[in-house]
Amino acid sequence: MTVYLDNSATTRTAEEAIDAMTRSMREDFYNPSALYGPAMQSEKELKEARETLAKAVDANPKNVLFTSGGTESDNLAIFGCAQASRGKGQILYSAAEHSAVKKACQEAESRYGCQAVEIPLTREGLVDMVALEGLLGPETLMICVMQVCNETGVIMPLDDICALRDRLAPQAAIHVDGVQGFLRVPFSLKKSGVQSYAISSHKFHGPKGVGALVWKDGFRFKPQMVGGGQQGDLRSGTENTCGIVGMAEAVRVYPADGYEKMLALKQLLVGLLKEQLPETTVIGLPEDDPRSAGHILSVAFPPVRAETLLHALEGDKIYVGTGSACSSKKGKHSAVLTAMGLKNELMDGAIRISLCPENTEEEIRLAAERIIAHVNVLRRFARR
Amino acid sequence: MTVYLDNSATTRTAEEAIDAMTRSMREDFYNPSALYGPAMQSEKELKEARETLAKAVDANPKNVLFTSGGTESDNLAIFGCAQASRGKGQILYSAAEHSAVKKACQEAESRYGCQAVEIPLTREGLVDMVALEGLLGPETLMICVMQVCNETGVIMPLDDICALRDRLAPQAAIHVDGVQGFLRVPFSLKKSGVQSYAISSHKFHGPKGVGALVWKDGFRFKPQMVGGGQQGDLRSGTENTCGIVGMAEAVRVYPADGYEKMLALKQLLVGLLKEQLPETTVIGLPEDDPRSAGHILSVAFPPVRAETLLHALEGDKIYVGTGSACSSKKGKHSAVLTAMGLKNELMDGAIRISLCPENTEEEIRLAAERIIAHVNVLRRFARR
Repeated sequence: MTVYLDNSATTRTAEEAIDAMTRSMREDFYNPSALYGPAMQSEKELKEARETLAKAVDANPKNVLFTSGGTESDNLAIFGCAQASRGKGQILYSAAEHSAVKKACQEAESRYGCQAVEIPLTREGLVDMVALEGLLGPETLMICVMQVCNETGVIMPLDDICALRDRLAPQAAIHVDGVQGFLRVPFSLKKSGVQSYAISSHKFHGPKGVGALVWKDGFRFKPQMVGGGQQGDLRSGTENTCGIVGMAEAVRVYPADGYEKMLALKQLLVGLLKEQLPETTVIGLPEDDPRSAGHILSVAFPPVRAETLLHALEGDKIYVGTGSACSSKKGKHSAVLTAMGLKNELMDGAIRISLCPENTEEEIRLAAERIIAHVNVLRRFARR
Repeated sequence: MTVYLDNSATTRTAEEAIDAMTRSMREDFYNPSALYGPAMQSEKELKEARETLAKAVDANPKNVLFTSGGTESDNLAIFGCAQASRGKGQILYSAAEHSAVKKACQEAESRYGCQAVEIPLTREGLVDMVALEGLLGPETLMICVMQVCNETGVIMPLDDICALRDRLAPQAAIHVDGVQGFLRVPFSLKKSGVQSYAISSHKFHGPKGVGALVWKDGFRFKPQMVGGGQQGDLRSGTENTCGIVGMAEAVRVYPADGYEKMLALKQLLVGLLKEQLPETTVIGLPEDDPRSAGHILSVAFPPVRAETLLHALEGDKIYVGTGSACSSKKGKHSAVLTAMGLKNELMDGAIRISLCPENTEEEIRLAAERIIAHVNVLRRFARR
């Protein structure tokens, strides 16, 4: 049995999405910009996909733009807003942000002249609200805060951040990287104070290479990819109809009870680990805190090193992550865990277990059993 | 029988590509950046795809970057080069360029401060070499010329342009939009004087939403999408493994004799049309000129209007284009045909017939028969 517990890195594509894609490639491969009848069908499918995504985040379908993924969506919101403001103002980003956000904010400095400022984190991995209060002001152009942290699973206090923005910097836009939250943690763009929201298809059983940016009326951004004028001239390039219908299908089939199921499995896993391994240290918020997302667990078993444990589990065909997959090959300490002020021993030991609605109790019990067995062996070597 | 003759707008995805993609989504869906074994398989597939593309254009595999398509590839070469030069210098682009190139050059003015200058065309739709000679100088940063014009099918004189650049502006990079030429018209990046070359998968039976930029050592460009540092930090974002393996498979199965076959069909078609319709006017170069690509035919039957003929043919399930699909919905005269100095009657009448290696003689004979029948009827109404 293969147990895949790295769903925040990427997910297996849903069979329903694959079916929708193969049908699109075989039958509705026409260019949506062409003038003849069959091309209208391709365009109709784009419209339906836009409606599906809009419904999932409670937004206006006309404010849904298809992109090549989460990175492009985040980059577009940030560069687009910076360019629209002609480089005036300050862009704040939380220290927990994915590098698709963090690096875009920093690059907006050199590209457009904005000033990028990092918002510190609490020890639990949340945005430090006192620090944020000190940073907000009339020069704030944008605040970038993720919905769910990909490394720790903490759910950021978006409502509190919006309220603070309303009070101290009402002109500022709030951009939310929803890559780890979309479909899992409830979110309504209309009801929230957020201006823009980034989505990545391959994190919820859609295909890779596709994503979306959703925004609220009034959010001004300049297109970053220019050309044929597709998608209302906001994102040129022939629409990736096959990827888009695959993503929309993945949204449609995502189980409504998926989150509760994952949350229960996560709590079961932590319980089993704590029972047998007193060194179990949950990173970020405790697993029973409602601000801790049900599908991501960051946990360490000091002094066992994460990479050693990851490869030991790989021998059992159990796949987990260390920090963010994107930076995992660089061998550096995670910037997020560093910003939380964690000790080196914890940073070196943090593995990330991330679930999907298809994971089962059997898989979780097996993973717990193997983690316990490996840690019991590895801790002896680590201590020498 | 459906006869699809709009292959320059997009192509039907090859079954081999679909198979490679479904396998990738089912079995090798892992994030190539992850640390465990199965992820290495995803990375290996990316490497093989890079080698396949490099071989097809005679380039170094390390200089192949996967993107979301032709528009991103063109934008990246142009914005990337403009940013790397800190906005110094002039970017020249031919008046025949696709808007993914033209608009990027114009946007590079406002984004980075470069100067964008259009190179005029001859009446045949080729780059005006005398005009180009007058424009080249020590301030030239980049010259953008497409390999094959998507609207007229003319093959641009890249070798002559490179020679002129070597003589008058040796510091300038040449960027080639290879979207309509790749795999069809022979091209060697190593042997040519070209610096960068853009590829779009869905124009040669690969999936939509994926493409590549290939370049030669020494070409300097700044990444436009920033984040996780994938692809050597030149293009961040989780690699679209499924789209990439689909594109590579489409390259592998593209028939070696495809071009000769399409050329013969194009000449057959023009022959049949000229025989019956004296008003047949081939736009650009004559169909027997070796500088006229074998897979694209721009033709008019004045005074019959293109859109009327397109919809008449649609009734026969024969699908053709008018100008470029990207601008076809705007109802404006094509900028390319305008730059060639064509009369309104020809511009209003130009349909584009674009072939793929799967088109058959039977399809071409049927298309000719139906075009002849419709033109014979429509010319009477058009003349009233």
